[in-house]
Amino acid sequence: MNLTVYLAGQIHDDWRDNLKRKAKNKDLSISFVGPQEQHDLSDSIGENILGAQPGNVYRDDAASAINNFRTEVLLKKADIVIALFGEKYKQWNTAMDAATALTLNKPTIIVRPESLIHPLKELSNKANVTVETIDQALEVIEYVYK
Amino acid sequence: MNLTVYLAGQIHDDWRDNLKRKAKNKDLSISFVGPQEQHDLSDSIGENILGAQPGNVYRDDAASAINNFRTEVLLKKADIVIALFGEKYKQWNTAMDAATALTLNKPTIIVRPESLIHPLKELSNKANVTVETIDQALEVIEYVYK
Amino acid sequence: MNLTVYLAGQIHDDWRDNLKRKAKNKDLSISFVGPQEQHDLSDSIGENILGAQPGNVYRDDAASAINNFRTEVLLKKADIVIALFGEKYKQWNTAMDAATALTLNKPTIIVRPESLIHPLKELSNKANVTVETIDQALEVIEYVYK
Amino acid sequence: MNLTVYLAGQIHDDWRDNLKRKAKNKDLSISFVGPQEQHDLSDSIGENILGAQPGNVYRDDAASAINNFRTEVLLKKADIVIALFGEKYKQWNTAMDAATALTLNKPTIIVRPESLIHPLKELSNKANVTVETIDQALEVIEYVYK
Amino acid sequence: MNLTVYLAGQIHDDWRDNLKRKAKNKDLSISFVGPQEQHDLSDSIGENILGAQPGNVYRDDAASAINNFRTEVLLKKADIVIALFGEKYKQWNTAMDAATALTLNKPTIIVRPESLIHPLKELSNKANVTVETIDQALEVIEYVYK
Amino acid sequence: MNLTVYLAGQIHDDWRDNLKRKAKNKDLSISFVGPQEQHDLSDSIGENILGAQPGNVYRDDAASAINNFRTEVLLKKADIVIALFGEKYKQWNTAMDAATALTLNKPTIIVRPESLIHPLKELSNKANVTVETIDQALEVIEYVYK
Amino acid sequence: MNLTVYLAGQIHDDWRDNLKRKAKNKDLSISFVGPQEQHDLSDSIGENILGAQPGNVYRDDAASAINNFRTEVLLKKADIVIALFGEKYKQWNTAMDAATALTLNKPTIIVRPESLIHPLKELSNKANVTVETIDQALEVIEYVYK
Amino acid sequence: MNLTVYLAGQIHDDWRDNLKRKAKNKDLSISFVGPQEQHDLSDSIGENILGAQPGNVYRDDAASAINNFRTEVLLKKADIVIALFGEKYKQWNTAMDAATALTLNKPTIIVRPESLIHPLKELSNKANVTVETIDQALEVIEYVYK
Repeated sequence: MNLTVYLAGQIHDDWRDNLKRKAKNKDLSISFVGPQEQHDLSDSIGENILGAQPGNVYRDDAASAINNFRTEVLLKKADIVIALFGEKYKQWNTAMDAATALTLNKPTIIVRPESLIHPLKELSNKANVTVETIDQALEVIEYVYK
Repeated sequence: MNLTVYLAGQIHDDWRDNLKRKAKNKDLSISFVGPQEQHDLSDSIGENILGAQPGNVYRDDAASAINNFRTEVLLKKADIVIALFGEKYKQWNTAMDAATALTLNKPTIIVRPESLIHPLKELSNKANVTVETIDQALEVIEYVYK
Repeated sequence: MNLTVYLAGQIHDDWRDNLKRKAKNKDLSISFVGPQEQHDLSDSIGENILGAQPGNVYRDDAASAINNFRTEVLLKKADIVIALFGEKYKQWNTAMDAATALTLNKPTIIVRPESLIHPLKELSNKANVTVETIDQALEVIEYVYK
Repeated sequence: MNLTVYLAGQIHDDWRDNLKRKAKNKDLSISFVGPQEQHDLSDSIGENILGAQPGNVYRDDAASAINNFRTEVLLKKADIVIALFGEKYKQWNTAMDAATALTLNKPTIIVRPESLIHPLKELSNKANVTVETIDQALEVIEYVYK
Repeated sequence: MNLTVYLAGQIHDDWRDNLKRKAKNKDLSISFVGPQEQHDLSDSIGENILGAQPGNVYRDDAASAINNFRTEVLLKKADIVIALFGEKYKQWNTAMDAATALTLNKPTIIVRPESLIHPLKELSNKANVTVETIDQALEVIEYVYK
Repeated sequence: MNLTVYLAGQIHDDWRDNLKRKAKNKDLSISFVGPQEQHDLSDSIGENILGAQPGNVYRDDAASAINNFRTEVLLKKADIVIALFGEKYKQWNTAMDAATALTLNKPTIIVRPESLIHPLKELSNKANVTVETIDQALEVIEYVYK
Repeated sequence: MNLTVYLAGQIHDDWRDNLKRKAKNKDLSISFVGPQEQHDLSDSIGENILGAQPGNVYRDDAASAINNFRTEVLLKKADIVIALFGEKYKQWNTAMDAATALTLNKPTIIVRPESLIHPLKELSNKANVTVETIDQALEVIEYVYK
Repeated sequence: MNLTVYLAGQIHDDWRDNLKRKAKNKDLSISFVGPQEQHDLSDSIGENILGAQPGNVYRDDAASAINNFRTEVLLKKADIVIALFGEKYKQWNTAMDAATALTLNKPTIIVRPESLIHPLKELSNKANVTVETIDQALEVIEYVYK
């Protein structure tokens, strides 16, 4: 049985590659999808396709329309969502993706450091499972195959 | 025609009272609902009802279960959601409520200061309307009645 | 039994007032809702609320976000949709509202002149009933009460 | 990952072949589906199968039932919808297909020339992304694979 | 608590009046809705509104579009459906209404004489409750209030 | 593109084999599913599995539970439903399957002889396409592939 | 704001009256609904309406069809479900009602004694809130009004 | 045609292996999925992944979150659910899984011994088919292939 896992969360470090490598080491049959990980491309994709916009608000809106399009296509394919919150950044996208997935009844795992327990408590309570490390998230998925 | 509006967002200042007063001045027939606004109560409600918990993680989880219960009951009643983001705090609850409402096809207005345009761009693009002040949010709702 | 009827279609003549008067004469217990009928307001509402936009594309997008918000709130309240197509204008809003209503399983009546039979044939086939005059549309609704 | 894309829009020129060729050049793994592109067949299919009808209204209704059947079968298979509006024709089918797709939560791209910005503004605002050329539409889809 | 009950089934005798009278005698707070009971009107409503049609097929299709419109509006309002099958007539409308209601998760009671047990067995198994008389159907509803 | 077609309708003649052969001759890539075609087995399957029942009502109910189970599993797999009505028998199963499929938004073709136009008019109006022969039904499906 | 609360659970003691009295003392505006509380009636309702059945299996099936009908009508009206598990009895109905409510996204509170923590752990985890006494359940609901 | 069958029910004996072997002997093309069958692992999985918890309630909640995650992922894949009830244990998980599956419109077979007829009567009435042995359950599934 192959499962598709959407990896929501920050795109500022290599946690996805890390997680994919570990999943491979465990021989889990998983297809990973997720947001655009090249930060610059993610911010400029609107103007890249639609041309220069009259200011930052419009530039951001153009980019986010295309990022949301991408997420919507891929999230639908997902059997499982992992949403990782780090200590930096606002990460409202991550909260949006997790809440969207949960409302669509996609089984969702939240990964967050201990320091974020309090501000994430409602989303965490709503998620299926909350863990602190990607290793734990992977163990949860591995359990499905056992 | 009476409309029910859920007011998602921070509970640290009096923006809700402010908005309600302005809605009243405009004679709009609106019932407002929203999260628990007494911050202390919102944090302690779990232990208040379920008794002392073994540490903060469990205390937070107990409180958030009951806060989520409240939100779920009231969000279902809402015809419209206003989600306000301020400059302080993580406000992942607000992002969660807005994304949940949008996935449930509740018409949703986001209110956020100029400084948050970039980090909120994807959620903002997904929302029906994004404005900067509660007066503007109220004007959008007033337009439904015109 | 009171029914709510959404009146989709052009806002350039007084067909809605006409229909409402006729419904009143028949003593039908109907609440009518519909799009903003003041054409200028409908086009300028974006800039009215959000301030001047950098060009027509952005002005139109700002206005349409708020018009769509209005439609979404009111369409949900509707038990029945009447979508009127006239001979002038593109009227893609009308087609959008009719298709949205049909996909949401709202019983929908299309009113269109004989001259539009061919270009409207697929939408017309998808609608519950297609007629040529608002009197006929009203007779269809009257039949529900008989 | 293979994606199925429904190509809604006018059937009077070769924009679909053009787009398919370009997608092939980009080596995108896409299955394209869409309406019947032989205009005459699309208009006569009702009488072809059901026999002569008593006049144009009935001829059109018979054809559109079968065209709608086709669209419904294929639209369900689609992960993405591209809806192209040209400057000629009423194109209410295209608006109907785009609004249906959006209501079914299919990620949808609208392609329209600059001249149609105003009449399409509400549908355009409702769509995930709006562009002016099929090259741009393809770039949006390409972005999903990046 | 008021309940709305849709009375699907043949329109050739006075079973609905009978049932309504009995419900009134039991003081049950029920609003009854149902199909057009004037058989001639039900058959001619298409031509009454749309004008003469070119033959019986088209006459029947015009009438049934408007009858289906009526059913769709009223069935949505129903909390409960009673579908009565008699020994005469094809009664495919009744089967259609019962299956539609069941698929929409409307609690549905089938009333049928002993002679129809075998041909109705699959629909009967799918319904919530199957009885032989309208008195029994009413007792089932009365039980909800006890 | 392979399509799965559910063949609802009477199981008393060989119309399904006939249709399958014709589909094969046209080289259409279709998987056909449908109800149990061995009439005796279909009637006795309840007692075959559950043992003797205390009378015909219970025998019929036991069989229909298992027939409905089968239909439910297979109907879900179907992209398209063909529902054939013949001149004999009550065929309420067929009406039930067609109405269920239509309520689940499965594109549905009704096949019925001219003699049944009037009693089937509402179901026929609700279906996507109504034809008189299985050849026509197959031509409708063939059109999807053209 | 009035809320409707469905009280699922055993019908062998007076916990519902107790809870209703306490809700009244707190002046909460709640309409309570629930299963038939007269145990004998609940067991005999099938035969009461449908007549003597050929043995206990059929007697039970007849009664449960009507009990399920009642539950389905009333559960749909509920904004909130309280499901109470006691130490005696199998109480699979209670588990069925709670799981049905949760799958229908009805906010659900489970009440269970400490002794049942382990066997109820999965259902408890799935519920919105789990408490040990009806006083606590009522406090959770009271919190919605605060 | 391959079908996926979820095997809900107690994990204390080898009924699943038994059933899988019999399905293999019948050459049925079925993929079986189900809950974690190693009882100890199922109880300790929470602490295995999340670390020691402060007492049994929290230990159980941690384990059940992950068990529910597993069930949710696999239940979605299922075409059919078999829920087996034995004479021992509370088995509320089984009732929860069966009710969830039925509410999601998954065709569901209940297997229960004669001794459980009365306490399971409502769930049994709600299920598609109820049988007493796994051989009978398998015959029901085999019938789909005949």
